[in-house]
Amino acid sequence: MELIQHRDSPRYIRLHERDNVGVVVNAQGVAAGSRFDDGLEAVEGIPQSHKVSLCDLPEGTEVIRYGQVIGYALKDIPKGSWVTEQHLRMPSAPTLDNLPKATAPAPEITPLEGYTFEGFRNPDGSVGTRNILGISTTVQCVAGVLNHCVTLARQQLLPKYPNVDDIIAINHSYGCGVAINAPDAIIPIRTLFNLSRNPNLGGHPLVIGLGCEKLQPEQLMPGDALTEGLEEKDWLYRLQESGEGFAGIVKQVLAMIEERLKVLNERKRETCPASDLVLGMQCGGSDAFSGITANPALGYAADLLVRAGATVMFSENTEVRDGIHLLTPRASTTEVADALIREMDWYDRYLDRGVVDRSANTTPGNKKGGLNNIVEKAMGSIAKSGSSPIVAVVSPGERAKTKGLNFCATPASDFICGTLQLAAGMNLHIFTTGRGTPYGLAMVPVIKVGTRTQLAEQWPDLIDVDAGKITSGQLSLEEMGWEIFQLYLDVASGRKKTWAEYHKLHNDLVLFNPAPVT
Amino acid sequence: MELIQHRDSPRYIRLHERDNVGVVVNAQGVAAGSRFDDGLEAVEGIPQSHKVSLCDLPEGTEVIRYGQVIGYALKDIPKGSWVTEQHLRMPSAPTLDNLPKATAPAPEITPLEGYTFEGFRNPDGSVGTRNILGISTTVQCVAGVLNHCVTLARQQLLPKYPNVDDIIAINHSYGCGVAINAPDAIIPIRTLFNLSRNPNLGGHPLVIGLGCEKLQPEQLMPGDALTEGLEEKDWLYRLQESGEGFAGIVKQVLAMIEERLKVLNERKRETCPASDLVLGMQCGGSDAFSGITANPALGYAADLLVRAGATVMFSENTEVRDGIHLLTPRASTTEVADALIREMDWYDRYLDRGVVDRSANTTPGNKKGGLNNIVEKAMGSIAKSGSSPIVAVVSPGERAKTKGLNFCATPASDFICGTLQLAAGMNLHIFTTGRGTPYGLAMVPVIKVGTRTQLAEQWPDLIDVDAGKITSGQLSLEEMGWEIFQLYLDVASGRKKTWAEYHKLHNDLVLFNPAPVT
Ligand SMILES: [Ca+2]
Ligand SMILES: [Ca+2]
Ligand SMILES: [Ca+2]
Ligand SMILES: [Ca+2]
Ligand SMILES: [Ca+2]
Repeated sequence: MELIQHRDSPRYIRLHERDNVGVVVNAQGVAAGSRFDDGLEAVEGIPQSHKVSLCDLPEGTEVIRYGQVIGYALKDIPKGSWVTEQHLRMPSAPTLDNLPKATAPAPEITPLEGYTFEGFRNPDGSVGTRNILGISTTVQCVAGVLNHCVTLARQQLLPKYPNVDDIIAINHSYGCGVAINAPDAIIPIRTLFNLSRNPNLGGHPLVIGLGCEKLQPEQLMPGDALTEGLEEKDWLYRLQESGEGFAGIVKQVLAMIEERLKVLNERKRETCPASDLVLGMQCGGSDAFSGITANPALGYAADLLVRAGATVMFSENTEVRDGIHLLTPRASTTEVADALIREMDWYDRYLDRGVVDRSANTTPGNKKGGLNNIVEKAMGSIAKSGSSPIVAVVSPGERAKTKGLNFCATPASDFICGTLQLAAGMNLHIFTTGRGTPYGLAMVPVIKVGTRTQLAEQWPDLIDVDAGKITSGQLSLEEMGWEIFQLYLDVASGRKKTWAEYHKLHNDLVLFNPAPVT
Repeated sequence: MELIQHRDSPRYIRLHERDNVGVVVNAQGVAAGSRFDDGLEAVEGIPQSHKVSLCDLPEGTEVIRYGQVIGYALKDIPKGSWVTEQHLRMPSAPTLDNLPKATAPAPEITPLEGYTFEGFRNPDGSVGTRNILGISTTVQCVAGVLNHCVTLARQQLLPKYPNVDDIIAINHSYGCGVAINAPDAIIPIRTLFNLSRNPNLGGHPLVIGLGCEKLQPEQLMPGDALTEGLEEKDWLYRLQESGEGFAGIVKQVLAMIEERLKVLNERKRETCPASDLVLGMQCGGSDAFSGITANPALGYAADLLVRAGATVMFSENTEVRDGIHLLTPRASTTEVADALIREMDWYDRYLDRGVVDRSANTTPGNKKGGLNNIVEKAMGSIAKSGSSPIVAVVSPGERAKTKGLNFCATPASDFICGTLQLAAGMNLHIFTTGRGTPYGLAMVPVIKVGTRTQLAEQWPDLIDVDAGKITSGQLSLEEMGWEIFQLYLDVASGRKKTWAEYHKLHNDLVLFNPAPVT
């Protein structure tokens, strides 16, 4: 990729030598008649992050970006035109029948050694980047009372236990009024189970139930390492056990919270290899720069983390679906390729059941940001995954078990994706945005990367990283990648706080429940 | 129904002369060999709220409660036995093809005049029972920032405006990452629209959006009476408009909140006829007493409210489905009966798509409480509706338009049902429970009715009404009904607070979204 030298002259970026469109990078766009460095003249005004045709594109021509077909010209498009959604026929989604599997030559991976962070080691070997008391719930009925208790505990108890970062209620809308025996119910149930085991929660559960809910604590917490050796009274309280009403509930819950705080407060950070990181990556509110700046920088940093032995997850089924033919070759084995295909196929059928219009994936914000369709969006989204082989696929709600690059199958919804990556064991989260979002999670630090300098300047106290430095020429892609890699280690160690952490901003968890409610 | 005179002697209740089972009411149950007043001897121990066979029930016999078949004996059941789930084969659900429509003789309704409450009259004619500033959101992305602003506003601004009861964020998990053009998407979208118009929110919307979400403010708030005559800047703010980051967002949102507080603070309660009440009824955590005490008392009070001209809603598709043959005759017209059938049919197909096991509706708590299956549960649930004709059916997310008894079609899930009843225009909520739940909503007062005195005594600071007084003989059903009717007027007027209001306990809204996420 060529760097742009002069801030004010009309500039576009062409990502791949096959591309016949470029992306305008000037903050104000370019006016009709503007001349780019290479002599190309804009025949009409083109906004920032939108596409300019680099040659005449006669009707039917393949329109190419990222070296991939993102559509076919619906009419003759003269050189220098603004290429919009109206000009393009979207290619069909790649069928899942004849995909190449594990055919790409495995890139040579030079191990990256000596990189460490300071983390909280858990009994199961996982490592927390924060030391949080998480309180699981079986059902939403308990949320009002539990929130009351958590507010009191934060005010009255937390200051006494300075090594504990926070107390959080793992609230959700599942647990009752749901089809608990439907085939797809396994997804929300195992998500809740694995959320309780997130590395940032210190390894022992605390569960608040109601008593009469469909999702009984025994189903949420089947006997495993998590509750083994614990008496039920040490990890579980059902509100209906209270013989003293609300006052009795509050007393009992606060007592259980304080017991856990005492234990968590004894924990100290220790030096851990970078291989103990479990990074979840996603994007929200993409624009045409997502695939040029932020996502490729994440991809570069992801390759570094994989070389350092870490677990790195990318996600968002509906955003990679149209680029699946680029992923199956990168699978490390045919089994992994088959797992990728299985998840795509499952999701195709899930969307079919709901009669979903595929073109609706691109949001109004995406379109305003110059992303014409899901194919173009997919290419940009996949850039996050870097170039490492895909070594494992994590189904929704399951925990990642394999170090290296994982595809964690999730919807693209920011909140469902984040929740499922937390269940997969994520201890660090990075989120790229082209339009801007104040997204945050209570359970892990979320690093937010803006795709344009303008966005970073507009929201200086929300956006953590300005990937626009790549287009302005301040940093090369590689330098930005290394900067993000170092930031991972700093944030994981607690040496740096993200803006969302600083403001204590977070969004609610959202479970993925493909089964009906009742 | 006979009343029980002696608290300690073995007692059962038989609700209908055709019944061949009774329900044990003694708090400790009855021991094997216990003799009831009528000479019946328990041949085994039977817990409270469970059923005793009143005669020998040979294999195949219809087992009858509420005068209705709740199952068939799977083997010979001797007189005086504990009749459990294992003894019963569940009857099939009534098919929807040949139901009687509007055939029941319309009961004579004597208008009940002169009953009033003190409420906040809105420009559209509806009346609030509380004066609340509700802030609508287009998408969950804004929730973290908005919650921060609401917390500040409650601390810093609300005390300056004493006539305003509360400031609430109408958060939800919809708005982006959803199949917004799927056929079923209309349900969550119109729910959000109508939530903004709830009578307790004073008639003018305040909407916080992000900017790039799929659910754009124009789709959430199509030009109607709500925004007519208002400039967009008076009711809408998109976070992405902020040029000064988080600090700028907070400043702007607080300024908009204060503008609305000034207007709302000018409002005063005025005397309104009881016909301005819009009551939503539901139950959660039922037991066998739900259908004996709490729900019939609600039914009695519902008949009084209907006589006073109010709008009264009952709900919960999955709980009335097995009693639908008792509802269609009560429809005021064949069109209303057809609408009932249409909603049941839609829900049957929705559940079928998810391969739902119908027997799973009864929760572990229901079963522990002596409710063997969904048929028995349905009979108890329907008792809430009293005896008035059903004059209208409200589809999920729609607003009720007809005074009288409405069926508001919702899932039984407490939170989804509550949310949909709020969208339907509910200004007062009553909730019956046999097992106990601390349920609350931020937007309306929720009156909680316990089915047993033991529950009311166990949770004296959560349960508002003890319907167990009916079985203990302290009040007749009619007296309890009148007591609840009077409580409606007192709570609606703000003269009485519910326990959930007192503790500021509430659960999150949950949208009903049958469409896929993306
Ligand atoms: Ca995305
Ligand atoms: Ca996303
Ligand atoms: Ca119920
Ligand atoms: Ca319910
Ligand atoms: Ca919440």
